[in-house]
Amino acid sequence: MNLFLAHIQQDNALISNEEAHHLKKVLRKNVGDQILVTDGLGNLFSGEIIAIETKNVVISNLKEFENKQKRSYHLEVAIAPTKQIDRTAFFLEKAIEVGLDAIHPIITFHSERRKINQERLERVGLSAMKQSLKGEKTKVNELIKFDDLIAKYKDFEGQKFIAHCDDTIEKTSLKEALTLNGSYIFLIGPEGDFSKAEIEKAIQYGFKSITLGNQRMRTETAALSTVMAVHWAHQ
Amino acid sequence: MNLFLAHIQQDNALISNEEAHHLKKVLRKNVGDQILVTDGLGNLFSGEIIAIETKNVVISNLKEFENKQKRSYHLEVAIAPTKQIDRTAFFLEKAIEVGLDAIHPIITFHSERRKINQERLERVGLSAMKQSLKGEKTKVNELIKFDDLIAKYKDFEGQKFIAHCDDTIEKTSLKEALTLNGSYIFLIGPEGDFSKAEIEKAIQYGFKSITLGNQRMRTETAALSTVMAVHWAHQ
Repeated sequence: MNLFLAHIQQDNALISNEEAHHLKKVLRKNVGDQILVTDGLGNLFSGEIIAIETKNVVISNLKEFENKQKRSYHLEVAIAPTKQIDRTAFFLEKAIEVGLDAIHPIITFHSERRKINQERLERVGLSAMKQSLKGEKTKVNELIKFDDLIAKYKDFEGQKFIAHCDDTIEKTSLKEALTLNGSYIFLIGPEGDFSKAEIEKAIQYGFKSITLGNQRMRTETAALSTVMAVHWAHQ
Repeated sequence: MNLFLAHIQQDNALISNEEAHHLKKVLRKNVGDQILVTDGLGNLFSGEIIAIETKNVVISNLKEFENKQKRSYHLEVAIAPTKQIDRTAFFLEKAIEVGLDAIHPIITFHSERRKINQERLERVGLSAMKQSLKGEKTKVNELIKFDDLIAKYKDFEGQKFIAHCDDTIEKTSLKEALTLNGSYIFLIGPEGDFSKAEIEKAIQYGFKSITLGNQRMRTETAALSTVMAVHWAHQ
C-alpha cells in the first residue's frame, strides 16, 4: 500500500498540495482505494479514499496501523553540503531509510557549496519517507552557518559530536564515545574538513571530538557512517 | 597526490592501459611528477614519473608509503543488482570507502535485473579505490547464480550470513550473530527479498539467517548497512 503525508483529523485525514497531486496524477488513485497515511510524527493509519476534490483528497475509515519502524533514539546530522548535491541527496535518502530525525545543511570555513536548493532536499526526504513507509518525517532545515548551529545546540540534551581528521586535536573513536542516551547530533565537515578554529569552538560548545576510524571517506559517506553507527548501537 | 594502480617491479612500476590514459590525458601528468602507486594488494609506494611511453608510464624511485587504511578483516558482499544500476554503483563506491574486498552480483529468484555491465562496475570500483587512496583493489566478480555462489562458498572459512525479511524463518540480529573472526560474506537480496527456498538452501550451506533490524531499507542500503556494521564492530 502507498503511504501519503496527511493532516490527520479526528475521524478522517486530508491530503493536500503536492501529496494530493502525487496521489491523483502520478499514482492515479481513485475513490474507494485503500492507502496508508501518516502525520509524520510517528503515527500511521490505513484508510479509504472517500473524495477527490480539486485541492484535497479526503480519507476516511481510519484505522491505526502499527508503526513497526519506531526507533528508540533521536538523531540529527549537520552536514556541509557536497559540491555535487546528488551526493548529499543520496546521504539523506539512505539516512532516512536507516533512521534520521533532522538534517542541518551547514556553511563552514572550507565549504565549497554555500547555497542549496532546499525544496529539492525536502522532496528527496519526503520521497524516501514514503518509499520506506516511515511514520516520521525527517526535518530538512534551512542552510545555517556553523557558528549559528553550534550556538543553537548549546543546551541540546543529547550527545553532541564533531567528526574530523585533524591529528593535532585529541579525538576519541565514536564507538568509545557513544553512550546510549537516546539523543544525538553529529557535525560532518566538507571535503577539506572543518578548520581548526571550528573544531575548537565546537569543543567549547560541548561537542565531543571524534574519529570515524582510519578509512578515508567522502563527506556523505562519513555522515552515513554516523547514522549507521547509531543504528547498530541501538540494535 | 594522485594514486594509480600499477604493476610493481623490483625498483620501478609500470602503469598501463586505462590507468596510463587517465594519468596522461585526464590528469595531464608529466615526467618528473610525484605520484602514488599501488599493486592493489595492500602496498602503496610514492614514486616519480621517469618516462611516458605510448603504452606505458614508468615510475621510479619507489618509496614505501604507509598504508594507514589497512583493515583487520576481510569482507565480501553478494548483492542482487538493483533495477536502477546507479544504486548498486553507489553501494559499491561507498562500500569501498568504508572497506570491501569483493562484490558478487547475484541472480536470485526475484531478481528484476539479470544482466549487468561489469566493466562499468569495475570502473566505479577502481575510481573509488583511487579517490579514497586505498591500497587494496576490490574484486568485482562476474554475475553468478545464487545457487552457484552458495555452493562456491561452502567451505569459506569466515562467517556467512543471509539477510532477509521472511518472518516465518528464524533469524538473529546481525549484531548478536557477528563474532569478530575477521572474515565475512553477506548475501543481500533483491527488492522482493530472497525466496523461502533460497533462504532455506543458504542455511543448509552454513549461512546464518539474520535481520538487519526493523527499518525498511532498499537493497543497496541493506548491503551498505552490513559493511558499516562490520566496520563499526572492528573499531
